[in-house]
Amino acid sequence: MIQRLSAEAFGTFWLVFGGCGAAVLAAGVPDVGIGYLGVALAFGLTVLTMAYAVGGISGGHFNPAVSLGLAIAGKFEYKDLVPYWVAQLVGGILGAAVLYVIASGTAGFTAGGFASNGYDALSPGGYSLVAALVAEIVLTAFFLIVILGSTSKLAPAGFAPIAIGLALTLIHLISIPVTNTSVNPARSIAAAIFAQNGALGQVWLFIVAPLIGAALGAIIWKALLSRSDA
Amino acid sequence: MIQRLSAEAFGTFWLVFGGCGAAVLAAGVPDVGIGYLGVALAFGLTVLTMAYAVGGISGGHFNPAVSLGLAIAGKFEYKDLVPYWVAQLVGGILGAAVLYVIASGTAGFTAGGFASNGYDALSPGGYSLVAALVAEIVLTAFFLIVILGSTSKLAPAGFAPIAIGLALTLIHLISIPVTNTSVNPARSIAAAIFAQNGALGQVWLFIVAPLIGAALGAIIWKALLSRSDA
Amino acid sequence: MIQRLSAEAFGTFWLVFGGCGAAVLAAGVPDVGIGYLGVALAFGLTVLTMAYAVGGISGGHFNPAVSLGLAIAGKFEYKDLVPYWVAQLVGGILGAAVLYVIASGTAGFTAGGFASNGYDALSPGGYSLVAALVAEIVLTAFFLIVILGSTSKLAPAGFAPIAIGLALTLIHLISIPVTNTSVNPARSIAAAIFAQNGALGQVWLFIVAPLIGAALGAIIWKALLSRSDA
Amino acid sequence: MIQRLSAEAFGTFWLVFGGCGAAVLAAGVPDVGIGYLGVALAFGLTVLTMAYAVGGISGGHFNPAVSLGLAIAGKFEYKDLVPYWVAQLVGGILGAAVLYVIASGTAGFTAGGFASNGYDALSPGGYSLVAALVAEIVLTAFFLIVILGSTSKLAPAGFAPIAIGLALTLIHLISIPVTNTSVNPARSIAAAIFAQNGALGQVWLFIVAPLIGAALGAIIWKALLSRSDA
Repeated sequence: MIQRLSAEAFGTFWLVFGGCGAAVLAAGVPDVGIGYLGVALAFGLTVLTMAYAVGGISGGHFNPAVSLGLAIAGKFEYKDLVPYWVAQLVGGILGAAVLYVIASGTAGFTAGGFASNGYDALSPGGYSLVAALVAEIVLTAFFLIVILGSTSKLAPAGFAPIAIGLALTLIHLISIPVTNTSVNPARSIAAAIFAQNGALGQVWLFIVAPLIGAALGAIIWKALLSRSDA
Repeated sequence: MIQRLSAEAFGTFWLVFGGCGAAVLAAGVPDVGIGYLGVALAFGLTVLTMAYAVGGISGGHFNPAVSLGLAIAGKFEYKDLVPYWVAQLVGGILGAAVLYVIASGTAGFTAGGFASNGYDALSPGGYSLVAALVAEIVLTAFFLIVILGSTSKLAPAGFAPIAIGLALTLIHLISIPVTNTSVNPARSIAAAIFAQNGALGQVWLFIVAPLIGAALGAIIWKALLSRSDA
Repeated sequence: MIQRLSAEAFGTFWLVFGGCGAAVLAAGVPDVGIGYLGVALAFGLTVLTMAYAVGGISGGHFNPAVSLGLAIAGKFEYKDLVPYWVAQLVGGILGAAVLYVIASGTAGFTAGGFASNGYDALSPGGYSLVAALVAEIVLTAFFLIVILGSTSKLAPAGFAPIAIGLALTLIHLISIPVTNTSVNPARSIAAAIFAQNGALGQVWLFIVAPLIGAALGAIIWKALLSRSDA
Repeated sequence: MIQRLSAEAFGTFWLVFGGCGAAVLAAGVPDVGIGYLGVALAFGLTVLTMAYAVGGISGGHFNPAVSLGLAIAGKFEYKDLVPYWVAQLVGGILGAAVLYVIASGTAGFTAGGFASNGYDALSPGGYSLVAALVAEIVLTAFFLIVILGSTSKLAPAGFAPIAIGLALTLIHLISIPVTNTSVNPARSIAAAIFAQNGALGQVWLFIVAPLIGAALGAIIWKALLSRSDA
């Protein structure tokens, strides 16, 4: 169990440090910055790389909503849910903390949003609470469908980390302007702790919506897509 | 059959919601927007991710032209063509509808083109009807060649979703300026319904040309590229 | 043999149509254009997609220099060299011709460089003949090393199209400013025929240098990298 | 042994020539340049492509810190460490030299930073020595975790070059603004030799920090993540 929880902690550290790090450090550099496209790629590659590295150890969730959805789908034991959530939160917060140390090492640094998630005034494109809710629920539901499908017996073995990691890239390509993209409560909590724009006051949505979306995705998978023989 | 049609509906939902979503929400953001490159990546990743997730269930067409081409090539039964087409259309239109809900959740939203396809005045680069026809036919024909080839017995197993998804990315890298890229009647109809630039009046081309192109690709494959033993 | 030559012709059509198409149609669009990065991705994806589609039929060269290098390395029969070269040239020129039809379908079109290769005044960044020669030779040599290595028995099966396609993307990321990137005589001849900037007068370099580079890569592979047992 | 050392030399040549080449030649071209995102992709693809090509020969390190980390983890023999380091350095420096020949072949060329690494005044974003140290150590540690994990028996076979190459892309997406990204002493030394901004005076950090980080990653892997049965 120590290996499994370590894997989840290091994986979620990498997701927050790498994804939010790309956003905070490199997205907005004039002319040569990586923009939303680079940030989307970075988030996806954190999952792709660590799912290949430690997916065989812990399953490679790195996300409390994913753990919940897998439990609902019968692919993960409920009794492991809380330990996984704690490991993910600890890893994510440490990742944000180390990022903060690096990011603050240049003149004129201000934490600002620190890649946190938000709606209304804290949405990059000023999207409403309802738009944010719908986006996070729908995107997390499809994230779970991709996870459950690409790891099922009907899918070719070994490719799931590519499908899942690039699904997270795709999700960011769609929704960074809406909510700065969460689909992951651990990532949202970790960034909000270090943000200085009031993101903690909105973080409830990025806990609730991904959990609902993950549950919805798992239910859709079981009811409409999976076969009893797979 | 319910699983197969669900898979096609959810897959086409994801294609329209994700691909058109990236275009509508994130492409044109100043400085950090994802541009045509990000939109091309998003469309391709919708297919890559859902082909790994549900390709084992339905074949992962998500596109009426692909279903037709596979039927002509003898890889799909004609009797399933209409049910697949209905599922793809329903999924695509629902995907566009949910996207509309999100996109309209910010001040100053106007539907405009809503990522619809067009020629002449509705082409992003002002390309003519003939250029649009040639582009859509040639690109859909090659899309089918890639699909038929990468799923044939001569190709290594398991990689087809990568080849097919990235083929769709490539197709967009070439032709977004010409027609905003269709090669998929369900995607074009879904976007045109919500567009407010007259795209519905041109949607016939994006039904006809992909279907012709897919048939052409299937015929080329059978006549010139496939071997009797594969 | 008809399938093999068709595969090479269609593959080289796709490489020129897709790679040069992305450059001519989409690279320079203001604000949302795909830039050199998108062109680099497009060239690589033409090879990745068609190598999965028809690599099992013809070997998936799509490039006269690659065919030569493989023959020198003992992986391709010399007697098939000329038929392959003819198929590649015919396919490439047809690809450029169809691209010309589409590209000329908008007001104010001028062929200009038409994604052709060049040095000195015809180099995108004004690089000299010597710089162009060195770049094309070195890059083609490494292209052959990647091709020979990733298809050898020591490499995991099935992944070669990813390695080879993305090697071509990488090659373009490095050298578009130098020569607009060739490493492929068929691609250079096809584009030069339709260019109206005098590219045909420099096309000799993009025939000679890739052939030398490919031979060099094959020799390095045999002498320094390959093992007798693989 | 000649094949193994050749593989390391050519691989590190390609890493420096390709990664630094993309940075020096193509990153800053106005409007269509590839930016940090393209440079990040280029570095990653040098490793992905050569790991598929020659990984079966030498292991595909191309990086003195990786060789050290693998030795600490018990996956590489200490007695081969110095020969590998020499081969990597020679290859890297030759790669930078050939790049210099090409890059200097255009009017108005100045070597400047020549894609070298630095902190404080030589950091692209003005990041401090401490920020640079932390970034290089943490990123190299995770690089080793991805390498050790994706090549372990619990990971699916054949995918490691994708995971490792794209991990290097991700590392660059995060940290180009901080140090121009090293995680590789051979790459840093090679670039610093040709730089004319004083980078050699700071190169110690990019030797020390990646070596510490690699050792740390190997120790974390052994202590917390690996299982005795894998």
